[in-house]
Amino acid sequence: MSGTNSERVLIAEGPAIILVEPQLGENIGMVARAMANFGLAELRLVKPRDGWPSEKARSAASKADHVIDGAKVYETLEEAIVDLNFVYATTARERYGFKPVRSPVVACQTLQQKFKAGEKTGILFGRERWGLTNEEVALADEIVTFPVNPAFASLNIAQAVLLMSYEWMKCGMEDHAETLFDALDQSPSTKEQVFGMFEHLEEALDARNYFHPPAKKPRMIDNLRAVLTRRAFTSQEISVFRGVINSLDRFPRQWPRKVVPRQQKAEKGEATEIEGNDGE
Amino acid sequence: MSGTNSERVLIAEGPAIILVEPQLGENIGMVARAMANFGLAELRLVKPRDGWPSEKARSAASKADHVIDGAKVYETLEEAIVDLNFVYATTARERYGFKPVRSPVVACQTLQQKFKAGEKTGILFGRERWGLTNEEVALADEIVTFPVNPAFASLNIAQAVLLMSYEWMKCGMEDHAETLFDALDQSPSTKEQVFGMFEHLEEALDARNYFHPPAKKPRMIDNLRAVLTRRAFTSQEISVFRGVINSLDRFPRQWPRKVVPRQQKAEKGEATEIEGNDGE
Repeated sequence: MSGTNSERVLIAEGPAIILVEPQLGENIGMVARAMANFGLAELRLVKPRDGWPSEKARSAASKADHVIDGAKVYETLEEAIVDLNFVYATTARERYGFKPVRSPVVACQTLQQKFKAGEKTGILFGRERWGLTNEEVALADEIVTFPVNPAFASLNIAQAVLLMSYEWMKCGMEDHAETLFDALDQSPSTKEQVFGMFEHLEEALDARNYFHPPAKKPRMIDNLRAVLTRRAFTSQEISVFRGVINSLDRFPRQWPRKVVPRQQKAEKGEATEIEGNDGE
Repeated sequence: MSGTNSERVLIAEGPAIILVEPQLGENIGMVARAMANFGLAELRLVKPRDGWPSEKARSAASKADHVIDGAKVYETLEEAIVDLNFVYATTARERYGFKPVRSPVVACQTLQQKFKAGEKTGILFGRERWGLTNEEVALADEIVTFPVNPAFASLNIAQAVLLMSYEWMKCGMEDHAETLFDALDQSPSTKEQVFGMFEHLEEALDARNYFHPPAKKPRMIDNLRAVLTRRAFTSQEISVFRGVINSLDRFPRQWPRKVVPRQQKAEKGEATEIEGNDGE
């Protein structure tokens, strides 16, 4: 983990996730896991069908025990959200009404704004089979729906919670291109390093008559340098590449005039008699 | 579904999803479902542990049969990607090396660019328990990793495929605020409509001596109008609100001078004798 990224502040607070009459303990567990993956911890359950606590939920939570242990159970949706200031209802079905409909990106921006203003927020998720009732949606402030394939729109609740949790964490990041770890630190190469690579390679190739016929040499060098520069090698990559040239350069530099039979050539694994040059 | 959104072109092509030695059929099925949710269809399996086809996979795919039926099985990862031009490897673990590490947002932007340029792309996902080997990652062009909670970083493969598929669909959308359906079409109210609502309500309230004492009336009107304008009612909402005023206004307008006993008042459900006004 690079210095900068390991110091990233972990978001461990955020909207409450409210599951309305969830049926399967496995799904509750997978919801808890998805929440933990993206830094959410507050799980509220309205009348879980198979009761609570649930061993199936704990098992499916894959060690997101802090979410499972902290889950609270309510008899009604109203009780589950009385202390909140702002609530989203998730739905895949079109609801006719005045209530604003938001994408997950916009919803999570709103949730972040409210979080920073000290408001308590929540996101409602409906039953596995048929979601939220219109009466339940009416208790929310706004609707959030996912940009799914219209021909295949059903997300299960764990997937829906995962996507909202993921957008929540992304919204809290300053830079969406940020990653938890990076490639090895590398510095852009200087032209001096690039020219050094050119000369190293060209000298080794020249010793083996690669630039043949001589009249073509300037054009061949242009092409070779174009191939080598398009990738914008880093300093570190140039070191690797020059190591490769050195290693190949250990073989005899003298152009063998003697023709080696094809079979013997293959056994030796070395290039020997060549018409023209390796570049053909 | 509103006119504009229903005409949205469905993205049904995109990167191949390549699962390396997946173990459980259920997970392969959930991967297929996640792909179908977000318009991906090309599933490739490298040595699925429990063989192929798999009834468990079909069942877990929840009718994403087109993905299951189209899945292809390969003996090696190399065979599974030979026809592709550009490949991402997903990993949660830091890999030391030169390979660029991207966030899902950046990776999907790259995949979209390559898709539009006619390149064939793919995304590798590792085994459930321990992901991809370093040798497998080395076959990819770049690495993609998820912005997860560092303290709880394990995503299962169906979740990882879901997030990449979701980002893929979002990248193909011009507007990330777009939703598949919208609230009822509504138009912003004109000031004429707002003033009409003010007068309607204030007249009905005035008839009931709401503005009491008279000296406070201008300030009370200011406050009331502030409450009513902060929400920026639409034309349609003003219609609803005026219907509410009309309905309440059906009750007697005359200020009853007679005091009604508290119990009788409650039974009738009407406001009767009031000290001051309703606003107190």
